[in-house]
Amino acid sequence: MDSLVEWLLFLVVFLSISISSSSAGRIGIPRGAAVLKKQHLPLKRAFSGDLHTYFYTQTLDHFNYKPESYATFQQRYVINYKYWGGGAVSAPIFVCLGAEQALETDLQTIGFLDDNAAHFNALIVYIEHRYYGESVPFGSREEAFRNAYRMGYLNSAQALADYAEIIADIKNNLQASHSPVIVIGASYGGMLASWFRLKYPHLALGALASSAPVLYFDNITPSDAFYSIITKSFRETSESCYQTIRRSWSVIDSYASQPWGLSVLSSKFRTCYASELKKELESIYVVASQFNQPAYVVNRVCAAIDETQTDDILFKIFAAVVAFNGNNRCYINPPTPESQTVTGWKWQTCSEMVIPIGVGENTMFQPNPFDLNTFINDCIRTYGVAPRPHWITSYYGGNDFNFILQKFGSNIIFSNGLRDPFSAGGVLEHISKSIRAVTTTYGSHCLDLFPKSDNDPEWLTKQRNIELRIIKGWLVTYYADLKAFQKG
Amino acid sequence: MDSLVEWLLFLVVFLSISISSSSAGRIGIPRGAAVLKKQHLPLKRAFSGDLHTYFYTQTLDHFNYKPESYATFQQRYVINYKYWGGGAVSAPIFVCLGAEQALETDLQTIGFLDDNAAHFNALIVYIEHRYYGESVPFGSREEAFRNAYRMGYLNSAQALADYAEIIADIKNNLQASHSPVIVIGASYGGMLASWFRLKYPHLALGALASSAPVLYFDNITPSDAFYSIITKSFRETSESCYQTIRRSWSVIDSYASQPWGLSVLSSKFRTCYASELKKELESIYVVASQFNQPAYVVNRVCAAIDETQTDDILFKIFAAVVAFNGNNRCYINPPTPESQTVTGWKWQTCSEMVIPIGVGENTMFQPNPFDLNTFINDCIRTYGVAPRPHWITSYYGGNDFNFILQKFGSNIIFSNGLRDPFSAGGVLEHISKSIRAVTTTYGSHCLDLFPKSDNDPEWLTKQRNIELRIIKGWLVTYYADLKAFQKG
Repeated sequence: MDSLVEWLLFLVVFLSISISSSSAGRIGIPRGAAVLKKQHLPLKRAFSGDLHTYFYTQTLDHFNYKPESYATFQQRYVINYKYWGGGAVSAPIFVCLGAEQALETDLQTIGFLDDNAAHFNALIVYIEHRYYGESVPFGSREEAFRNAYRMGYLNSAQALADYAEIIADIKNNLQASHSPVIVIGASYGGMLASWFRLKYPHLALGALASSAPVLYFDNITPSDAFYSIITKSFRETSESCYQTIRRSWSVIDSYASQPWGLSVLSSKFRTCYASELKKELESIYVVASQFNQPAYVVNRVCAAIDETQTDDILFKIFAAVVAFNGNNRCYINPPTPESQTVTGWKWQTCSEMVIPIGVGENTMFQPNPFDLNTFINDCIRTYGVAPRPHWITSYYGGNDFNFILQKFGSNIIFSNGLRDPFSAGGVLEHISKSIRAVTTTYGSHCLDLFPKSDNDPEWLTKQRNIELRIIKGWLVTYYADLKAFQKG
Repeated sequence: MDSLVEWLLFLVVFLSISISSSSAGRIGIPRGAAVLKKQHLPLKRAFSGDLHTYFYTQTLDHFNYKPESYATFQQRYVINYKYWGGGAVSAPIFVCLGAEQALETDLQTIGFLDDNAAHFNALIVYIEHRYYGESVPFGSREEAFRNAYRMGYLNSAQALADYAEIIADIKNNLQASHSPVIVIGASYGGMLASWFRLKYPHLALGALASSAPVLYFDNITPSDAFYSIITKSFRETSESCYQTIRRSWSVIDSYASQPWGLSVLSSKFRTCYASELKKELESIYVVASQFNQPAYVVNRVCAAIDETQTDDILFKIFAAVVAFNGNNRCYINPPTPESQTVTGWKWQTCSEMVIPIGVGENTMFQPNPFDLNTFINDCIRTYGVAPRPHWITSYYGGNDFNFILQKFGSNIIFSNGLRDPFSAGGVLEHISKSIRAVTTTYGSHCLDLFPKSDNDPEWLTKQRNIELRIIKGWLVTYYADLKAFQKG
């Protein structure tokens, strides 16, 4: 495994997200796909000459007509024409809906479009989400994130409207009015994809929503489900590993309460910066579980714990830290500047994307229930405005989701890996003939959208093939309907 | 016909809309239903003790998180509990979605809910549209309409979000989470009803959209279709009437170009105020056609023209004016203060509701094609901001409407009377098994929603019965689905 250490290093990227958000009693959605960038997708592929970059002059506020709503910003998208069959034959268009990161991250980590466009003669489009990457209003990132007056426009409804305008513009420019559009997204981007099909069926024929926890709002999903899945992953991997982690918290607490205890901990864990050790460890377990595949991180972490022969429980835990992070001089370093993903997503969770995740009883973690009032007050303190925790379910639905959509809507795939803790808020059962759930028992976060590889397990290939067969079915039906429509 | 004169007087209410907007080369959607208020619906019924008035603290801007977006206003709605079977048995809820007028107008003119709630054991709810009636933000109507900074929040997406919040709140308050909601609306309110079912299927089981010109945007419907239908109505009623009107314009022009011509015209038409005579006449024909039923206004106008024995074509036209308005001392009076409907709707058409209506060749009117640039410039001059003429179709769809919705969505009735010029932009053919078009050859604007009467023609009763049968079908299916859902 020559690339393991390198690969594990990439995980550190996500740690910052998990830590910063879990300290407010919740977990953001780490950009898991990025873990594979070195392993599978060399930069030269992502930024090959096949990609053409464009900027669309986008409306700042689609839902208001105040003079300031008419302000515009340049929104970035890229197109790969290489495989496209053209508008004349209404060849399909695959659109990756960007989420809380720069477009480059999607290009590097999402392989589904590249891997399958040739087979479908599809155009490939990646659109960057407003306020991320280069698609930033108010002239600069600093200005855009200055305060809530500026950040107020960063929300999902505005983002979907952006995508609607750009998709319509592309179809118009390419004279492809009847080219069917399939929108594809990962995690938050997967939510956007499913919501886009529901809200803009005239612009997208179907959606592939990977690891989209569309039901992790209000009280639809129990707030403790997230950590329960992580616990289950560890326990199923190794009972002794699970027990060691479960017991480790009180040992840490016991050290921390003694004189010199903190300096002992600091030495044991090679921390070069004062930090909340327990939060750092928690994040390792979260990320390991969420992005377990394809490097089997939980297995590696548990192997380190189980194979370290010692009675010192903290030495076992430290072995897990080393297995996770590689062999470093320091394991807890001074904080680096907050990434744009962290900055943006913090705001999004504090405005509308209120995903209530807490730690319940009977996990391998110390209980830390989600408290909505505390959460709201934290947000008000940070931004001066309160979240609207019920808006997502008001606007997109969620309660009785299956019941409602069994007679409304069509053509959505909700894919989930059941080892991914966010699968707790996913759609895990078929809703109708054309709104399908595709799950894998051992899959992790957004795994199906990662670039395919010769090392992929059979069940992953099978999952992707099911998704492709469903999409193909949509297209076959669509072209038959189109023919009838154009005749009649 | 003791009530004819009285009834015709009500038409004057709508004239103001037609005139003011047609002078910009287009026609707003007059509040046609109101024509019947005296004829069918005494005030004592509308404001009976069965109605309970409530106010909901509504969010000013649902799609932004700027501090000012959190401002609230009191939104009015009324409930009639008299017929309701209750939340325990999930009895249905009929919700009338208000449009560009005060709630009282709906109470007075829309009879469909009152007429049918008993049969369905339905709760009746009327919700007032933001910026109309008492549901005005910024403390007062004057403040709310001060400028585009204040009016920017007056648009359809915000209105639908208002309705979503209030409907969810009512269901919650009444412990009626599984009570199916049928939304009902007239004209612009009909558009809102159909759009609400499409955007909020989790909150409305179905929609009855009466005379909703959802396809009168962009170039989906030819801009000259509106006046072509009016012309057809008149011509089918009387060829000589049609010919007289058609020839009258050049006679008026010829007078107007002569010395003392204007004063002759003023005397002939008893105008007590300088106005554009041709616009006033045009409005009479528009309103007569749009609201022809049930008083057969086109017949009466044409009878006046045809039965007036004279070679003076203008004397014939004047007879039409008298037939339309009743016997008055003056027929063109100084303008009265602009109604709230005119004020609000002018803004709505100049922001998003850009309905391109112009007069083409081969009608009984003088050609006056719709010019988008002129329209846009007029709006900019008036409000300082430009319309977004393509937004409605971006957000709600419209192009290939039938094709798109045949495989997406369900439970919408689009009802239209084909004599109504707005039917040109309506959905006139069935889209799917559950998205139905119900049309009547001789029906006028929103006729099916007017209170039923013993004088109703058979085809109108039949139209309503078809609509009721469809709604009943939705409910039967819903309750069967609900039973299965709750069992399993």
